[in-house]
Amino acid sequence: MMIKKLITFEDLGFVQWGVLNEDETGVYSAIALEEAFFTPLPETLEEFIRQGNEGLLALADALEQNEKTDAVPARPINTVHVLSPIRQLAKNIFCVGENYSEHIEEFHKEKLKELTKFPQFFTKAPTCVIGPDDDIDPHKNVTKELDYEGELAVIIGKEGADIPVSEAMNYVYGFTIMNDVTARDLQRNHGQWFHGKSLDTFAPLGPCILLRDAAPDAFTIVTKVNDEVRQDASTEEFIFPIPTLISTLSQGTTLQPGDIISTGTPSGVGVGFNPPRFIHSGDTVEISISGIGTLKNQVK
Amino acid sequence: MMIKKLITFEDLGFVQWGVLNEDETGVYSAIALEEAFFTPLPETLEEFIRQGNEGLLALADALEQNEKTDAVPARPINTVHVLSPIRQLAKNIFCVGENYSEHIEEFHKEKLKELTKFPQFFTKAPTCVIGPDDDIDPHKNVTKELDYEGELAVIIGKEGADIPVSEAMNYVYGFTIMNDVTARDLQRNHGQWFHGKSLDTFAPLGPCILLRDAAPDAFTIVTKVNDEVRQDASTEEFIFPIPTLISTLSQGTTLQPGDIISTGTPSGVGVGFNPPRFIHSGDTVEISISGIGTLKNQVK
Repeated sequence: MMIKKLITFEDLGFVQWGVLNEDETGVYSAIALEEAFFTPLPETLEEFIRQGNEGLLALADALEQNEKTDAVPARPINTVHVLSPIRQLAKNIFCVGENYSEHIEEFHKEKLKELTKFPQFFTKAPTCVIGPDDDIDPHKNVTKELDYEGELAVIIGKEGADIPVSEAMNYVYGFTIMNDVTARDLQRNHGQWFHGKSLDTFAPLGPCILLRDAAPDAFTIVTKVNDEVRQDASTEEFIFPIPTLISTLSQGTTLQPGDIISTGTPSGVGVGFNPPRFIHSGDTVEISISGIGTLKNQVK
Repeated sequence: MMIKKLITFEDLGFVQWGVLNEDETGVYSAIALEEAFFTPLPETLEEFIRQGNEGLLALADALEQNEKTDAVPARPINTVHVLSPIRQLAKNIFCVGENYSEHIEEFHKEKLKELTKFPQFFTKAPTCVIGPDDDIDPHKNVTKELDYEGELAVIIGKEGADIPVSEAMNYVYGFTIMNDVTARDLQRNHGQWFHGKSLDTFAPLGPCILLRDAAPDAFTIVTKVNDEVRQDASTEEFIFPIPTLISTLSQGTTLQPGDIISTGTPSGVGVGFNPPRFIHSGDTVEISISGIGTLKNQVK
């Protein structure tokens, strides 16, 4: 079978990672494959990403042996608890400010030309990552303007700096989904965006990593709040395509395996409506990206 | 002896940490103390910080035994290579944008009132930390406007969120010096500051961690470029004092031991001059903070 989607999950109280089977109904646990076939596989998905192609070849070898022997059954996906694929170890969550022209128009029409010359990079604190089933904390004492941003997130697979645009895709390990949850009032008041983007639970991430070689050329991205479509776009609308983002960010700055670059959000965020439609306790935000899956989180 | 200053250093090719002796001419190596007195001490200063008071008590115990026995001699400080006290493991380098009113006036006089209502937080990538003797890479292909910012950096010692101002100093482990090196053109062009602040080598850090209980109530901070004084200020001029910074940043966001909060820079940076006085290959930047020491780095 082809390795397409990797997940981190909890099963019987034990956090591990694995690869989805072809119809995505089950997961082959890396630790089970290691024990069955003596293939050395690391403990976490972060470490596996750092191994790059070498890790993928070892995993492919184990899966091939398993096809012949059926020694390791796939654990039914609905019996395990899927976590964020990359967890607390992620060093950097790089984010891109405004990367879909329609979304920029929501905010400040007059600035479109100026803002499309250079990508705006900011970060979210790695402490705010949560998994697919975890709740978003509304932090009611801190913000009155809780908002969602559905985004395609790129996982870096190889260390590098000063990466040319033409080679940038070689540094991509795969893709996942991120909700760039934002406290609009803090984002506005504090000038720099980091603070309003970095409250605990403000980076739902997952449900899987789709490997680069299994990815389509462009993704569609749909965000629903309580089943109502709010964002519906294609990554073909990017002002700065992924190779440009990677190349620009890496000029002078070393990117590392496991780093996440979230690529910006399309139009349709809550603050773009008049009056704004922020999210509140009990609301669910569901981001679906073609080929990857759906990331769904409820506001606590 | 009182534990006052901790350093990370390399000696005989081995990276380790230790505590300075009273006249600061030598360092007691943690690993040597551990071996002599069977006191468990962790391998890195980051881990030691996470142990909090427990670690400090164990270290004090080992030093007391050493005073009696003289089993572990201090290594002369001028024979070891001092590194940045906290290294690649630091998860977050939080920075404060504008925290001295004179420095704000350098940039935009009209905005003073607005900017002093809320602190502006941004981050530097942890990959850009270098030590006291390392060179700053001018990244000539990426920036034409290399600038320095001398800053007092706070090291967080205890995990916590929603920290009240009155309790904030309990979360401080100690203090060090940071040069918040900045590419002004990138800072300007990319809107959000992260990118222009995060090129490799842009966070010289050190030379030691001065423990909170050994620190003065206020620090003076002097930055020299090639022996010419450019910045000369007191942390008494802070718009947002340290407890306010910690409390504000921690509202909704969990701070962790080893996190760094750099507290902003006083007036006198290169871009504040007319015409601007940026730094170039061969220049040295020397930041001295009372009670901590001097952080000196050359531009490569």
